[in-house]
Amino acid sequence: MRALRFHGKKDIRLEQVEEPQVRPGWVKVKPAFVGICGTDLHEYLDGNNLIPKPGHPHSITKETSPVTLGHEFSGVVEEVGQGIIDLEVGQRVCVQPTIYCGKCHACQSDLHNSCPQYGFIGLSGWGGGLAEYIVVPRQAVWELPSNVSLEYGALVEPLAVGFHAVDIAPIAHPIKSSTSMLVLGGGPIGLSVIQAIHGQAASSESPPVIIVSEPTAARQQFAREFGAHHVINPLTTDLVTKIMELTDDRGVDVVFDAAGVQVGLDGAVRSLCAGGTVVNIAVWPKRATLDMNEITFRQRSYMGSATYSNRDFGRVLEAIESGKIKPGAMITSMIALEEIEDKGFRALIEEKDTQVKILVDMGRSLRKDSAVAV
Amino acid sequence: MRALRFHGKKDIRLEQVEEPQVRPGWVKVKPAFVGICGTDLHEYLDGNNLIPKPGHPHSITKETSPVTLGHEFSGVVEEVGQGIIDLEVGQRVCVQPTIYCGKCHACQSDLHNSCPQYGFIGLSGWGGGLAEYIVVPRQAVWELPSNVSLEYGALVEPLAVGFHAVDIAPIAHPIKSSTSMLVLGGGPIGLSVIQAIHGQAASSESPPVIIVSEPTAARQQFAREFGAHHVINPLTTDLVTKIMELTDDRGVDVVFDAAGVQVGLDGAVRSLCAGGTVVNIAVWPKRATLDMNEITFRQRSYMGSATYSNRDFGRVLEAIESGKIKPGAMITSMIALEEIEDKGFRALIEEKDTQVKILVDMGRSLRKDSAVAV
Ligand SMILES: [Zn+2]
Ligand SMILES: [Zn+2]
Ligand SMILES: [Zn+2]
Ligand SMILES: [Zn+2]
Repeated sequence: MRALRFHGKKDIRLEQVEEPQVRPGWVKVKPAFVGICGTDLHEYLDGNNLIPKPGHPHSITKETSPVTLGHEFSGVVEEVGQGIIDLEVGQRVCVQPTIYCGKCHACQSDLHNSCPQYGFIGLSGWGGGLAEYIVVPRQAVWELPSNVSLEYGALVEPLAVGFHAVDIAPIAHPIKSSTSMLVLGGGPIGLSVIQAIHGQAASSESPPVIIVSEPTAARQQFAREFGAHHVINPLTTDLVTKIMELTDDRGVDVVFDAAGVQVGLDGAVRSLCAGGTVVNIAVWPKRATLDMNEITFRQRSYMGSATYSNRDFGRVLEAIESGKIKPGAMITSMIALEEIEDKGFRALIEEKDTQVKILVDMGRSLRKDSAVAV
Repeated sequence: MRALRFHGKKDIRLEQVEEPQVRPGWVKVKPAFVGICGTDLHEYLDGNNLIPKPGHPHSITKETSPVTLGHEFSGVVEEVGQGIIDLEVGQRVCVQPTIYCGKCHACQSDLHNSCPQYGFIGLSGWGGGLAEYIVVPRQAVWELPSNVSLEYGALVEPLAVGFHAVDIAPIAHPIKSSTSMLVLGGGPIGLSVIQAIHGQAASSESPPVIIVSEPTAARQQFAREFGAHHVINPLTTDLVTKIMELTDDRGVDVVFDAAGVQVGLDGAVRSLCAGGTVVNIAVWPKRATLDMNEITFRQRSYMGSATYSNRDFGRVLEAIESGKIKPGAMITSMIALEEIEDKGFRALIEEKDTQVKILVDMGRSLRKDSAVAV
């Protein structure tokens, strides 16, 4: 079968690989739509990062590059392995790509996302969504509700990142209208967070106050579309002053940092109310400095949110099913597999501000180029 | 009356000041024992820090230096103001020295410790414990249980700092024996934390695991005395390796940072289990750097604990009354008021490792030098 494999920095190849065979307890899925994310781009531009290098196999998959890419995807069940009684061929699903040991202290505390052996289908081995078929463990497979499209199914993974961050933020859930939040960055993760806040709001009529700090006009517009009530350009407006003005001098309850920039973090801490928290979702390119006394004297905190828990995919699916969130506008481009380098990775770099999620339509590419495989 | 007043850096004077008069709702107290703390020493060596400078009065007290020192103290009620029906002359009390506005967002959220106008009796004005008399608001006065001595009463303030940090740490309370904690630093605050952990343990027979990191032999000994189960010298032992060894490779649930040193913080983060928290109590001399990815990828957090809430003095008094904590060994020296510069401040500098709490016995000093005033 055909698969898009990462061989190394700027070396991705659409090539023939052996078709994976289903085994007991596992499920064979035919990918339908696959999102490209910042992590993929980072591997393409500067890998291997997360992808295991030759000679250093992932401790669970035992694989190294070349690996098949694609960790944000939906698809259709092609075949179920022995012992699986709750999934049928033809069912529409999305796949939670997390790989973890299941035995360590973190896994046993329901913190799989913090497992020292953590990895991802589509990066660490076990195949990826950018292939004709993939075989994954039963527990990685989430059935799509009947009114959730396969396109939306490919958005569940990035949305789960936002849902998790909002879920573990130390605020009362469901979130009341008296709560105020600042989101740093209006890229895909920032937009996931905005939707997650609406998805976890006590009432859609009176959501919490959502403020977004984002310098580019295109992303500001996306932030508004997904439900930000105030959008601040931190390059032209003093963030802390504006936040205090918007919150009657109280500060926000939570800041979600989806930017990972020192100046943003400094403003974030000072934008918090007493007892408030910065929840970091960004990957930082280097160490950051913190004014510990700004944290301590007002009893603030800083915490990390790591991908998602084993409950978040279900929460996202419910929120889409019930209409609480409508993530369609995140899909800014739909391409064929053959176009991934030019219309995928290059577009994510050059049209960074106007692209949110580029989806690879696996049906389209296969129909066009390999009629036999279909 | 006589009072020890801070005029500026290395300029403290025992001088005559006007005796304060009780007023409606306030209480006149005759101080008995007064602790000297790191903050006092810091003002003495390098003030004005917290103490308001001439020209910059504290927003609530409207005072500047000279101010009377002494914010950790016990005493006896001398006179009660009009309207107070629940306190009597002669009662043994300790004083919670916090000054706050009561109206701001923080105060209204029960976070008085984070009030932007926060201050302390004994530093920001309203007199201090190092005087013959002081007049304080009713709500600052805590009655001592009958079996709690006036000496112990002077330890309630520093113990409340430890109790607060342990109370707000995100762990289940009361604390179970399966919980493990690391305390950075075996000075007065570190020892308060150790006692607070025992004070908030589910059972005195099976307390949580308490590990202390402290380089000096004298403080290591104190840490053991107050109930540390393991003491690590971070200069000769690799902290993280040792912590992983002691916790079966899991890491500790919480680190209490009572040291405020970069290398300690780095080890602290890596000593945490997935989902664990560093609770900072230290005052940092400068910004610190943090490996945000070490925090985020294992969903750890960093939070500040600011002094204490309005519940902590009561909790400390209960723990002493019930015998859960026995803080007596914290008192390493008892001096007269006249001796404060030499046997107080100088001793805290030169005998730093062997001194924990030096108490000024107000009775002793007054009897010796100013018979008329008594
Ligand atoms: Zn991704
Ligand atoms: Zn694990
Ligand atoms: Zn103090
Ligand atoms: Zn206040």
